Amino acid sequence: MRFAQRLNNVETSAIRELFKLLGKPGIISFAGGFPDGAMFDVDGIREASAHVLAHQSGPALQYGATEGYNPLREQLADFMTAKGVSGMTPESLIVTTGSQQALDLIAKTLLDEGDVALVEAPTFLATIQCFRLYGPQVLGVPIDADGVRVDLLEEMMVQHKPKLVYLIPTFGNPSGAMLSLERRLRVLELAVKYQTVVVEDDPYGDLYFGEAPPPSLLALSDRVPGSRDWLVHCGSLSKVLSPGLRVGWLIAPAALLQRATMCKQFSDAHTSTFAQATAAEYLRSGRMPATLDHVRSVYAQRAATMGAALQREFGDGLAFSQPKGGLFFWARLTGARGQLNDGATLAKKAIDQGVAFVPGAPFFSDHPDATTLRLSFATADVAKIEEGLQRLGRAFRGD
Amino acid sequence: MRFAQRLNNVETSAIRELFKLLGKPGIISFAGGFPDGAMFDVDGIREASAHVLAHQSGPALQYGATEGYNPLREQLADFMTAKGVSGMTPESLIVTTGSQQALDLIAKTLLDEGDVALVEAPTFLATIQCFRLYGPQVLGVPIDADGVRVDLLEEMMVQHKPKLVYLIPTFGNPSGAMLSLERRLRVLELAVKYQTVVVEDDPYGDLYFGEAPPPSLLALSDRVPGSRDWLVHCGSLSKVLSPGLRVGWLIAPAALLQRATMCKQFSDAHTSTFAQATAAEYLRSGRMPATLDHVRSVYAQRAATMGAALQREFGDGLAFSQPKGGLFFWARLTGARGQLNDGATLAKKAIDQGVAFVPGAPFFSDHPDATTLRLSFATADVAKIEEGLQRLGRAFRGD
Repeated sequence: MRFAQRLNNVETSAIRELFKLLGKPGIISFAGGFPDGAMFDVDGIREASAHVLAHQSGPALQYGATEGYNPLREQLADFMTAKGVSGMTPESLIVTTGSQQALDLIAKTLLDEGDVALVEAPTFLATIQCFRLYGPQVLGVPIDADGVRVDLLEEMMVQHKPKLVYLIPTFGNPSGAMLSLERRLRVLELAVKYQTVVVEDDPYGDLYFGEAPPPSLLALSDRVPGSRDWLVHCGSLSKVLSPGLRVGWLIAPAALLQRATMCKQFSDAHTSTFAQATAAEYLRSGRMPATLDHVRSVYAQRAATMGAALQREFGDGLAFSQPKGGLFFWARLTGARGQLNDGATLAKKAIDQGVAFVPGAPFFSDHPDATTLRLSFATADVAKIEEGLQRLGRAFRGD
Repeated sequence: MRFAQRLNNVETSAIRELFKLLGKPGIISFAGGFPDGAMFDVDGIREASAHVLAHQSGPALQYGATEGYNPLREQLADFMTAKGVSGMTPESLIVTTGSQQALDLIAKTLLDEGDVALVEAPTFLATIQCFRLYGPQVLGVPIDADGVRVDLLEEMMVQHKPKLVYLIPTFGNPSGAMLSLERRLRVLELAVKYQTVVVEDDPYGDLYFGEAPPPSLLALSDRVPGSRDWLVHCGSLSKVLSPGLRVGWLIAPAALLQRATMCKQFSDAHTSTFAQATAAEYLRSGRMPATLDHVRSVYAQRAATMGAALQREFGDGLAFSQPKGGLFFWARLTGARGQLNDGATLAKKAIDQGVAFVPGAPFFSDHPDATTLRLSFATADVAKIEEGLQRLGRAFRGD
């Protein structure tokens, strides 16, 4: 069988291979990118879906508009308005099958063979692969603890004339970094200056610990005239409510939204109306604020525990910033005093000790940094995090 | 904003424009391709989803495997085995977000710019558009009441060396035609002879009236050695249970299935696990056979009513075959005795009379036949079908 050329642009992920090892009994995993299922508001979702089947079974089980189920579009518009975005109406967004589909539709709508897409280095692996299936070159822009380096971003925009710039400005995967307010405004200015689409992927922005992060690029766009015309925003209920519903959304200028809708029509016709109606009813029920409070406080505690334990176990062997939200620690093995500094090697030793994480190299579209690691604190409780880090410390030291 | 070149390959569908007119109050519509929501087994789906949230809320609300939720893959493997397909295991299929996504994954996995895909003339509009977004030429092979003309199919396979042949062999949309057993076997022989992928899209095969249709190409593949290696089969619960769940499936040779899974990972990560678990529990509950019996008998009666009324209203002005299953009448205005013979003109006059259907021309990838019509008998009850056909008769005659 002869397959399409585009498949040559992607490879099976090294992380996927690692995940096959996670079945080992008793392993403590910091490898996933999942939220903790124990925090899902099952009662709330049960009530919402029962309400839907009692009162809206017709539309909830029938074909629906490609753009999304209208009661959900209304709820999501309100949700975004509450987060400081101006001018939101149900027509400002389309519902997608998770935000992964939003990424696919953006790529399908915008990217040709030979185009350049700029992403953060490191960034979400499934974005790199998703984009590459449409043929562009994907290039990484360096980041630091305050997010993407806007000086280098501008240099690369000038040099490569990208079709789009993709960022996860708030608690990014894998970096955990939070783009500063100053840099956010600069990104918006660059979008206007170079007439370039900026994609803001924001699945983690609601998962902050303590103080709220700066507003999203979308919410800030009123401060930079013209920037809204270049802004694309992807949202998701996966990290805050349930990934199993596969409910995400895409906000974009009308011309792009219309074309993304056409592409979606031929991708999956529409997102499950049953899942959409359930999500809409959940949001309408008013339970989301309490759910968010709960999730934030649990993750905050786990992040604090993991940070202290990493410090204790690795000392100067590891450099990292304490995340202010999200699900991830991003760290770099320093190699100080001749210690182990290869992420993949440590990952293998860690599995032998009964603990898992993912090496950071695969998260780079180019120029991978082999000294990096990603650890998720989301799914292990505080005791498991302590135990897991002790094991990781033994793997690191070779005890 | 500069969009991707591939968008130039598709246009907004004429049918979509027509659908905007359907909001007119009191209109009787034969235009849709929807099943009748009044026949959805809401009680069964309610019980299934409640069971899922009571007993499997963890996996049903969490991220899941791209290949699909295992209990659903097991149920679907059994469902296909019961329909005469040999060798089915859960690993033989992946779950897709409706069968529309299966079409998208097939195209993404197989079709390059410059390739040729052969389809029936007429065929499912969203297949033509879905394929075109990946750059191939889509060419139509003529059909008759027994489905695709296999003699012409072979000629076109020789001439165009297609990358794939796409068929809806059983009660196709829009043709309603049923590919004969003899032709099914010939299609399988041609797949082997020309080493060409044949895609069997089968959303309607279970909706037969009276006698069951011949087995699917997939079920027949054992009779033609080597043919299974070229066969791709798309199934769906949309027409028999509920489109709102967006549960379809793709059965294909392992090399293709593996690549389609990779593409799906970057398209939507996985299909809603909540919807998948609900569908799995529904199938496990054993209610499907009774649901199918009910749906078949209601549609059979509606099809009989519509056939008699078309005959009565149009006489020799319309040529059609009585469908043996599915949702559609496909008909051709003969122009006998100088009568109206343009489908689009009749569609406009029909709207004025308070009845809607879709002209057939858009269902052709090339060489559209402007005299054709598609009428669905699925969503109007017998009385509405009688009334709607009287209106259509008036539109036709210009009363």
